[in-house]
Amino acid sequence: MVRSVVGGITAPLGFAASGISAGIKRSRRPDLSLVVSRQRASAAGVLTENRVQAAPVLISRERLKHGSARAVVINSGCANCLTGPAGMQDALAFSRSVARSLGIPPAELLVASTGVIGQRLPMTRVLKHVPALVAALSRANHRKAAEAILTTDQQVKETAIEAALDGTTFRFGGMAKGAGMIAPSMATMLCVITTDLAIAPRRLQWLLRDATQATFNRITVDGDMSTNDTVFALANGASGVSASAGSRAERLAMKMVHSVADTLARWIVKDGEGATRILEVSVRGARSQAEADDCSRRVAFSPLVKTMLAGADPNIGRVAAAVGSSTARFDPQRLEIYLGKVRVVARGIALTAQNSVARKLLLRPEVSLLINLHAGNASSSMLTCDLTEGYVKINARYRT
Amino acid sequence: MVRSVVGGITAPLGFAASGISAGIKRSRRPDLSLVVSRQRASAAGVLTENRVQAAPVLISRERLKHGSARAVVINSGCANCLTGPAGMQDALAFSRSVARSLGIPPAELLVASTGVIGQRLPMTRVLKHVPALVAALSRANHRKAAEAILTTDQQVKETAIEAALDGTTFRFGGMAKGAGMIAPSMATMLCVITTDLAIAPRRLQWLLRDATQATFNRITVDGDMSTNDTVFALANGASGVSASAGSRAERLAMKMVHSVADTLARWIVKDGEGATRILEVSVRGARSQAEADDCSRRVAFSPLVKTMLAGADPNIGRVAAAVGSSTARFDPQRLEIYLGKVRVVARGIALTAQNSVARKLLLRPEVSLLINLHAGNASSSMLTCDLTEGYVKINARYRT
Repeated sequence: MVRSVVGGITAPLGFAASGISAGIKRSRRPDLSLVVSRQRASAAGVLTENRVQAAPVLISRERLKHGSARAVVINSGCANCLTGPAGMQDALAFSRSVARSLGIPPAELLVASTGVIGQRLPMTRVLKHVPALVAALSRANHRKAAEAILTTDQQVKETAIEAALDGTTFRFGGMAKGAGMIAPSMATMLCVITTDLAIAPRRLQWLLRDATQATFNRITVDGDMSTNDTVFALANGASGVSASAGSRAERLAMKMVHSVADTLARWIVKDGEGATRILEVSVRGARSQAEADDCSRRVAFSPLVKTMLAGADPNIGRVAAAVGSSTARFDPQRLEIYLGKVRVVARGIALTAQNSVARKLLLRPEVSLLINLHAGNASSSMLTCDLTEGYVKINARYRT
Repeated sequence: MVRSVVGGITAPLGFAASGISAGIKRSRRPDLSLVVSRQRASAAGVLTENRVQAAPVLISRERLKHGSARAVVINSGCANCLTGPAGMQDALAFSRSVARSLGIPPAELLVASTGVIGQRLPMTRVLKHVPALVAALSRANHRKAAEAILTTDQQVKETAIEAALDGTTFRFGGMAKGAGMIAPSMATMLCVITTDLAIAPRRLQWLLRDATQATFNRITVDGDMSTNDTVFALANGASGVSASAGSRAERLAMKMVHSVADTLARWIVKDGEGATRILEVSVRGARSQAEADDCSRRVAFSPLVKTMLAGADPNIGRVAAAVGSSTARFDPQRLEIYLGKVRVVARGIALTAQNSVARKLLLRPEVSLLINLHAGNASSSMLTCDLTEGYVKINARYRT
């Protein structure tokens, strides 16, 4: 019923996009990204919970209160964070300039920034490029917009899906950036989801928060949480299909938002800085949800587990050590761990006979780890990537 | 009053030590270590809080209840963890063999293991080497004992200090291993502290716990907590000086245990896997002790902060992001951060003019970071090291 289509954020009707270079990045790669709906759209957003928040986050949080927007503008290369009142002035001036060029009130424009923290936006260059950014808007430019939000990402991340109800087709599209600093809750990641479905702002906010919780908040690259994380959703109703509360359309929309967010979240982990493979950590049999979550996080965050994955060495003791250091209460003599379908720990004892099989499993691009605590009924999962020398290289040298 | 002396764990009177290779490590480097007091000693220990605990940890926890011991035997190369009842039998058989060779009851022998988790001890080889281990005991072999507890450590870590009271000299000695998996509370680290002071077991336990809290529990290499962490202290009274509760001797002893533990803890961080420099993270002005502790840990554990240190790049936004992601409540507009004596964030604004000075400071072998939240009176500190490609290399390849 739901199928993939090409087109990213402009796959839904009534959206246009553009991406250009304004010279914020020294590399001259694209750094300004714009998504516009031709009509007013319901708007929703999930923003970073970090206590230190970038100027655009503060601005968008305020503007989301209206529940509607016409456009999203994003710059990469500069996070505009730790920049004080001057940084706030920069963000407001930039947003006023884009809104004026688009002919919409600034309150209808959502903003986001990603990049180095503690640097001011090069305002002269940025403002000079606003007309070109707006002039480049087209339905064809979705990929350019997706490219212009990247920082240390290796790949452009965009996706689109469609479904039909009573003969009418509607679509969801999305683009994201991630790479480093990815962790619950909401790390340096940006995501814009678009749809031509009609849906009330409150319901859209609820769908987006639910999907974020199940996808973006369950991935980690390095356990860090950024000052700029932002997920936006715009629903412009251009398909003519309306998703009222409790309708079939809303149930389908929920599934589709989850699907778009899940695709992009997995992609972010796969494209994690220096990552060569991804690991799905599932915890079962915990005494409570909080303990299950803490346990899956400890394992997914453990540098020793992540380097084990990088080395494809089934040193399963590292997993047990991470499990045991979590807040989860369990009897170590009942601990059971599976690597893929192979049981590597049974009744608290490492089954080393499985080492050669386990080693082969660890070499796959996607590895799964199931930890059964046999202490209750709660479960939890996390998606992470391996920690490689490449990660260190990227992060020791980023910016220099 | 307190001065350094040579001699490590046998610097105090009445102790002998040895270290030999039993072939547990494939490298044939020393892997059996023994420390013996010629008379019964008060014994204390602080053991891992991980829920998954190695067999020797379970045995020593039980034996420490007596409050006295004659010796400590440690093997490296195999953690004897996740080995179930068979691993427990191995540990008991090994300890019986050593106790018999020494002519002491097994209950008077403390045991510890470090190395790969999930592998059984090669018992034939281990038992065969017990007589040689005991035969090698001498006051001169302290360094060999310190060498035989190492795994991925680069350096042998031992220290000794002495003081005098009313003309009588007494000493404290210590040895430790660390390197990876170092984190509060008690990571893969082993430490043995000896003294020829006479002190009651309960007071010794109190001194040791206090010192551990302030030193070993405030260091991190990679945020992981191991299944085998152990700190032992033996006090045999051979100096003739007695430290009764509340005495001058006890106050001095407290200072000396702290000093020995602090020296070894700093050394562990400096010798962290792949580490090239160390970072002292101090948090001030937090609203509560718990918030101060969480904040200093978040910063010290952050891979982005640790790679920033490796790259000597003053990307101070990463510190602010880590601070903001902690549970500490503060007004971002009052956040102040110092790198050494240079203020790099004032009133929540990054002072980029200081970048070249900051870069130079980050190149020093010891770097300090002071974070003032200006929200209360609680403070906390943590010692960590940089995260380098070397760390990943060591941990991706360890065991293979």
